[in-house]
Amino acid sequence: MASFRLPLRHAMVSWAPVLKVLAVLWLVLASFMVLPWLVLLLERDPDAWAFGWSILIVMTSVFLGWSLTHRVSIELKPRHMFVLTTLSWVSICGFASLPLILGAPQLSFTDAVFESVSAITTTGSTILVGIERLSDGLKLWRGMMQWLGGIGIIVMAIAILPFLKVGGMRLFQTESSDWSDKVMPRTGGIAKATMTVYGGLTLVAIFSYWLGGMLPLDAVVHGMTSLATGGFANSDASFGAYADKPVLLWLGSLFMLSGALPFVLYIRSVRGSPSALWRDQQVRGLLWLLLLVIALLTGYLIAKGAPAFDALTQVTFNVVSVVTTTGYASGDYTLWGPLAVAAFFYLTFVGGCSGSTSGGMKIFRFQVAMVMLFNQLRFLVHTNGVFAQRYNGTVLTDEVVRGVIAFSFFFFLTVAGLALALAMLGLDFVTALSGAATAVANVGPGLGDIIGPAGNFATLPDAAKWLLCVGMLMGRLEILTVLVLLTPMFWRK
Amino acid sequence: MASFRLPLRHAMVSWAPVLKVLAVLWLVLASFMVLPWLVLLLERDPDAWAFGWSILIVMTSVFLGWSLTHRVSIELKPRHMFVLTTLSWVSICGFASLPLILGAPQLSFTDAVFESVSAITTTGSTILVGIERLSDGLKLWRGMMQWLGGIGIIVMAIAILPFLKVGGMRLFQTESSDWSDKVMPRTGGIAKATMTVYGGLTLVAIFSYWLGGMLPLDAVVHGMTSLATGGFANSDASFGAYADKPVLLWLGSLFMLSGALPFVLYIRSVRGSPSALWRDQQVRGLLWLLLLVIALLTGYLIAKGAPAFDALTQVTFNVVSVVTTTGYASGDYTLWGPLAVAAFFYLTFVGGCSGSTSGGMKIFRFQVAMVMLFNQLRFLVHTNGVFAQRYNGTVLTDEVVRGVIAFSFFFFLTVAGLALALAMLGLDFVTALSGAATAVANVGPGLGDIIGPAGNFATLPDAAKWLLCVGMLMGRLEILTVLVLLTPMFWRK
Repeated sequence: MASFRLPLRHAMVSWAPVLKVLAVLWLVLASFMVLPWLVLLLERDPDAWAFGWSILIVMTSVFLGWSLTHRVSIELKPRHMFVLTTLSWVSICGFASLPLILGAPQLSFTDAVFESVSAITTTGSTILVGIERLSDGLKLWRGMMQWLGGIGIIVMAIAILPFLKVGGMRLFQTESSDWSDKVMPRTGGIAKATMTVYGGLTLVAIFSYWLGGMLPLDAVVHGMTSLATGGFANSDASFGAYADKPVLLWLGSLFMLSGALPFVLYIRSVRGSPSALWRDQQVRGLLWLLLLVIALLTGYLIAKGAPAFDALTQVTFNVVSVVTTTGYASGDYTLWGPLAVAAFFYLTFVGGCSGSTSGGMKIFRFQVAMVMLFNQLRFLVHTNGVFAQRYNGTVLTDEVVRGVIAFSFFFFLTVAGLALALAMLGLDFVTALSGAATAVANVGPGLGDIIGPAGNFATLPDAAKWLLCVGMLMGRLEILTVLVLLTPMFWRK
Repeated sequence: MASFRLPLRHAMVSWAPVLKVLAVLWLVLASFMVLPWLVLLLERDPDAWAFGWSILIVMTSVFLGWSLTHRVSIELKPRHMFVLTTLSWVSICGFASLPLILGAPQLSFTDAVFESVSAITTTGSTILVGIERLSDGLKLWRGMMQWLGGIGIIVMAIAILPFLKVGGMRLFQTESSDWSDKVMPRTGGIAKATMTVYGGLTLVAIFSYWLGGMLPLDAVVHGMTSLATGGFANSDASFGAYADKPVLLWLGSLFMLSGALPFVLYIRSVRGSPSALWRDQQVRGLLWLLLLVIALLTGYLIAKGAPAFDALTQVTFNVVSVVTTTGYASGDYTLWGPLAVAAFFYLTFVGGCSGSTSGGMKIFRFQVAMVMLFNQLRFLVHTNGVFAQRYNGTVLTDEVVRGVIAFSFFFFLTVAGLALALAMLGLDFVTALSGAATAVANVGPGLGDIIGPAGNFATLPDAAKWLLCVGMLMGRLEILTVLVLLTPMFWRK
């Protein structure tokens, strides 16, 4: 008995700091649940109790975690951080699904978890049909889950991933990535500034949408899900419910793009370096890519006879939506023709800037890979040269290049493996491949009749939904953070 | 006038060695044309003159090239080799198409070039319908083109690519890759031994097919296109014309596999190291992959109610066909279900061993990438370690790893770019994507109704055929060999 309890106690002690931080994060989640609860109470909606019970369950877990760990100091080693990062996203997704199970739509466990994972990872794929008829509280909750996930990923990208050296993220290592006690106050400062910018931009978006003609609740939810590059909307037609108002589509494009830029640069812009955003190579790369693709597809649509301004508006909105991994759709862009289908499939992988709320592979990885590829061509011509590789004004170390490359391979392997598993469950080739890609890249819509921009994930088999949940979480956690946990060597002393 | 002639004369002098070697290769091509010519003369087929004229045209080019360069000594620098490699494949594809234009099927220029590029690159996609009704001479010529392309690629992989350091091929650099005068006799010896093995195995295949029940001409053509992992057959149904004879399917699997193993190892096996093949990590990787995929798909078919032996036979034949990049089909395997479609799409990329006749990305690149990925995981766990990367018993240099990685990226970029261009021409997503992949990997069949294993490339628009020709040639030349020629720095002094 003692021989069993001893390792258990040992594990408790060594992982207690992780539980302590988790309890804090759960507390944040519970506090977020209060707002929809109050809304439903005010509206005398009988579903209010679903949020009441959810808050109670989450708070019980918080107190349990706190009581077990209140005497432990938070000292996190890299091993803790890997586990903490993964556990925090998984547990928050689990808790966040409670109101969907206990309340009105009374989703199955699978559907509720799919919806909350899709929300928290800011993917935006949905299994809900008849979203218009959801209670105001639930509409708000879907938006808030994405908004919470959005701030989570920014903080993770600024403060945790560079420190873990995942996927070449060390490129973005600053003092704020250093978790020693000395610079903690500074990290806290940057985190606070980030939240201020994120909250401020969200308020601007909400207000703009409202001025542009959205219903107040729609403005609030779209404002949150735009900045989070999440993509949940309050209609089965996604943003298509407002597709007849070009001004809203242009505002949407603007705010999705705002969510896909590195938030640290907003702070630098404000703090005395106004051109920080425009001087950044990653931002410029994203803008050039968008311009290029929008020009190509707009020309394609105009050549097919579409009116110019309408084509430009629709193309800009949907291209920005997919590249920023938001996943709103203003209509079924897969009907534009084969070129559009292929283009949107590729764009699914791209993603926005690192340090933003968007998913995908991220612009900087393509840029680093391009530097590497160009150097390889140079090497073949001038056989005996060593070339310094530079990016964004600094020398690229081999470590960063290797990290970026390895990430890209793991990303494709994850998508390919997930697609194969989905095909094994009977999904057709296009649904399986685009579904895997859209999940891992945290975009939202896939291709084909079932999960395309005009479709819905509801009809997929349960096993496929669970696989997609794994894909969404792995994508959000930059894959390697999760994979490391699956290696035996991680758990060896 | 003089100012124009001088650079022209200078170019002539500096590129003369390239023309001289090209003339020799054209001479080989012309001598290959003699056999189908004789067959047609013996059969008193009026199409004989098509080969007669073709030989005359090629020989005129040979004499022209020879007369311009007979006083030049063959001294090839790396720059020459890049140009020579690309020009030799392009020019031979051009000349090889002549009998198809001048003779009975009287193909259009586009169709003839597509067929000959598909043949010489050992891809095996065809635009011909009614292959059964072609003259014996043309059937033979289609097989011989592939057989010639097969030996071309082996010699290139042993003697040229490692020297050019393309795509990590330096891993296979031996004394035979050294083009200095001292070891030239040795290279010649290995080239001769390779041709002997290639010819010998082809004879064994022809004889076995004949014993197994094939018509003599079918046995000859299938023998040649099996070892060349080319995939041309004498029927619109591909190998399906013999799908009712399991023994032929198993023989086919065996000979396709023989063509996908490194030919240098056959020579070592004969010369005192009998286990050279089985000790090679690349060969074992290929065999394990085949076993795994065959087991998976056979199980899948049996679960769907197929008889066990029949399932095993069909799966083995078609999996070996696609992985070795041969491209025979014994039936429409895309009807087996979504898992099969996804699996065959992935297998399109894989390819056989380097130094064989097969295309694709090659097994060793996946193995090197896996070593790199595993090291990256190890790096994330043990943050401060440097790990020696080993492959096939030797240490992997950074140069080789970088070459392999860059190749993989360029491969995917080429496929993606080609697919986008095909989609722009109006091809549907699956046809465009699988068509691009099957061309660049030199496999043969794609997916979908048009170019799938039961389809044909005839109905594609001409522009798509030309794009696919570029893809097939780039794939065969390991992409970088061609890309280097497109960089301005290659042409700078």
